[in-house]
Amino acid sequence: MTTARFSPAELLDHLRGLHPELAVFGPAELSGRHPGEHPDNFAGGVMAQPGTTAAAAALVRWCAENGVAVVSQGGLTGLVGGNVSRAGEVILSSARLNRILSIRPDEMTAEVEAGVALEALQQAAARHGLTTGIDLGSRGSATVGGMVSTNAGGILAFRNGVMRHQVLGLEAVLPSGEIFHDMTRVVKVSAGPDLKHLFIGGEGAFGFVTKVVLKLEPLRPHRATAFLGVTDAAAALAVIRHFRGLSGVTLEAAEMMWPRYIRDHAALKTFDLSWLEDGAAALLIELSAETVEAATAALEEGLEALWEPAALRGGIVAQSLDQARKFWDIREDSGFYYTAIPDAASFDISVPPTFLDAYVEGLAARLEAIDASYAAYVYGHVADGNLHITLIKPGPLPEAEQRAVEAAVYSGIREAGGSFSAEHGVGREKRHAYEAFAAPEKQALARVIKQAIDPKGLFNPGKVPF
Amino acid sequence: MTTARFSPAELLDHLRGLHPELAVFGPAELSGRHPGEHPDNFAGGVMAQPGTTAAAAALVRWCAENGVAVVSQGGLTGLVGGNVSRAGEVILSSARLNRILSIRPDEMTAEVEAGVALEALQQAAARHGLTTGIDLGSRGSATVGGMVSTNAGGILAFRNGVMRHQVLGLEAVLPSGEIFHDMTRVVKVSAGPDLKHLFIGGEGAFGFVTKVVLKLEPLRPHRATAFLGVTDAAAALAVIRHFRGLSGVTLEAAEMMWPRYIRDHAALKTFDLSWLEDGAAALLIELSAETVEAATAALEEGLEALWEPAALRGGIVAQSLDQARKFWDIREDSGFYYTAIPDAASFDISVPPTFLDAYVEGLAARLEAIDASYAAYVYGHVADGNLHITLIKPGPLPEAEQRAVEAAVYSGIREAGGSFSAEHGVGREKRHAYEAFAAPEKQALARVIKQAIDPKGLFNPGKVPF
Repeated sequence: MTTARFSPAELLDHLRGLHPELAVFGPAELSGRHPGEHPDNFAGGVMAQPGTTAAAAALVRWCAENGVAVVSQGGLTGLVGGNVSRAGEVILSSARLNRILSIRPDEMTAEVEAGVALEALQQAAARHGLTTGIDLGSRGSATVGGMVSTNAGGILAFRNGVMRHQVLGLEAVLPSGEIFHDMTRVVKVSAGPDLKHLFIGGEGAFGFVTKVVLKLEPLRPHRATAFLGVTDAAAALAVIRHFRGLSGVTLEAAEMMWPRYIRDHAALKTFDLSWLEDGAAALLIELSAETVEAATAALEEGLEALWEPAALRGGIVAQSLDQARKFWDIREDSGFYYTAIPDAASFDISVPPTFLDAYVEGLAARLEAIDASYAAYVYGHVADGNLHITLIKPGPLPEAEQRAVEAAVYSGIREAGGSFSAEHGVGREKRHAYEAFAAPEKQALARVIKQAIDPKGLFNPGKVPF
Repeated sequence: MTTARFSPAELLDHLRGLHPELAVFGPAELSGRHPGEHPDNFAGGVMAQPGTTAAAAALVRWCAENGVAVVSQGGLTGLVGGNVSRAGEVILSSARLNRILSIRPDEMTAEVEAGVALEALQQAAARHGLTTGIDLGSRGSATVGGMVSTNAGGILAFRNGVMRHQVLGLEAVLPSGEIFHDMTRVVKVSAGPDLKHLFIGGEGAFGFVTKVVLKLEPLRPHRATAFLGVTDAAAALAVIRHFRGLSGVTLEAAEMMWPRYIRDHAALKTFDLSWLEDGAAALLIELSAETVEAATAALEEGLEALWEPAALRGGIVAQSLDQARKFWDIREDSGFYYTAIPDAASFDISVPPTFLDAYVEGLAARLEAIDASYAAYVYGHVADGNLHITLIKPGPLPEAEQRAVEAAVYSGIREAGGSFSAEHGVGREKRHAYEAFAAPEKQALARVIKQAIDPKGLFNPGKVPF
């Protein structure tokens, strides 16, 4: 880590006037704004908001020439400290790159600037009977550029894949200030190395994403939503198989909450759990069909058909949109525990879905082996094997204990073909995990590429280790 | 281009004995084998066939230490000379890396060595009611590794995306001889730069793919197949929209053949075209449903429903599997013209599907402007905008004329958001196109990455220009 070459005041002096479409803010202006999911996001104190790609390039070029580090920021919803800034660094925010450039209904594509929030794009697409193929709880703030940079997954990945599978084209400013422009709108491209995939999931280490072409999907607004009680992930997967096998019905979500999560959150929200057997986990299921009635009928018939074979332990079908929203709130307002257990150690892993039960059982045992009182909230996207895990204990833990908990959480994941980070990225918080659990030769190759593209190490330093 | 450091005989001497699992063949042995789609594939005269990843790594390490270039080969079905070899180079063939390591029905994944042929995997998967999400005409020979290296697309890309969207994990030998091993089996990975995407579509320039984890899809064997007459791509897209909008029915293919292609090929095969109006194009449609009867009924009802709105110009539904196979033969045996017009200039482009008609019309005009007698066979995957184009004139053309034809074919594609190479790659034949039509900054970045990973330029030299 080098010491800052410029004070915030000096940086502001230099940046102001660099480009007419570049807005610049200092510590005084930033102090009044919410830094988002990480308190250190604005610690650098200097933010540049380009209104055009050219303005972003002008800023980056100046930073490259002057050895100033650049930290990219989108909707500030990142959960791994991937956007924290330090003194001497310039925050490069996509906040003014917020135009939806085109929605082409016939092509089912959208061309957007990187700072467009997911929900804003969903609303614009809905006017054409379309929607995005990726959806996630932080849709109101999360930007397309940030979702590209973390290869976001969310609740539809079991069906539509992750962000990488939805991006057709991309533009980014490289650490040199040059612009990489590859805005194809077709799915079939075999025209030399497809380097846009470096920026997807690249967490801002290789470039600052400025524009994206995304595939869109048909909007299926006629939904039915239910909570089911299940013993384990195997039962949830049986439910998923049933609904995915129906014709005329689309499974839109399958979110599982293990017993402690559903109990504690429902208690906090005074959400009625009388339908759920003691000790059971909850599975949130949403279906779409040609009509709400058809979706609801499929859900109710499914509940009946599955009751014995999947050993269901309760079930309730939402009777109104409002009730469905309350169901979703139990799943999506997942930060509820941060008030009770601030700075709790949190994880985001994936394993093949068939390994989920063995993994969760093993995790509980491994945590207990560290401390008999240790337990975790476990919930997530069961159909694609992505779990979110939060230790039920205020943090931060002492270093050694944190490492022990990480070892417990990450144990066996790589061998099972899973990932120590499923959709949140590495950022600053998962650096140790990356170093300990990413394949060494993958880390070595990443360093080679980083050195080639960003030899001065100016883009998002201190995050994914290179 | 450097002159060969070793004669074939010297190379054979060095390679034999490098590793017990490495089979080595010289010019005498290769002369009796078919070189596949390009006559120069075996021109190098020396082929190594590793039986394990370690054997491949041993070979590559020796080549790296001795400055010997390596040309990767799979099923030899490549159409752009991406696998041609020259004296002094070692052919690295995946022929003995041909094991299906696992098929996990519950996960719907397959783990295979790179030399497994697509059809062999399809047959193995079918025993579990599964199939690959990518399918293409050369399935009998094309290997998974080759399909990864060219980011193959084929007939299902409009629904399942391209190879890049189906690969979950990958192992490759790097130009240094090190092994990159990232065999995840989950769709959600956000764990640092996902460098496996360099090898997908990398045409062997960055590594030799040894193993792959692929997603599998449910097998839907109950099919119905029809040929429809259409005026243009717009009509074909209306047909596609209709069938994609039906519930309980899956559109499995939509292959369009413009009038000259269908007429000339049908004449050659004495395939009855009495159902097709003069001057109309043909659209091959295949549906699946719960039963053959349901699929056939959906096709027949669709034909009736679409007859007027899509201005259909004929239609015939296959009455047997044998007849369906004959339909497919007209589309897939697309090399028919090479006998009549050997070495014809051929292209493989993609544009957003809504641009297809304007593109094809403009292409005809641009070709005529070069020479009034010039016309092309045009056919391809209409739902994803991927056209194959063959100039109806024996080749090779004089250099200047070849460049003029290329300019005519590639005109406007980049501006329309398309790609000058959709699924065949760049190889040796599309080098000029890459240099002329790939974005300069993309080419520059590709050179930087190539230099970083393969500083001596030993992997597939003379192909994608770096």
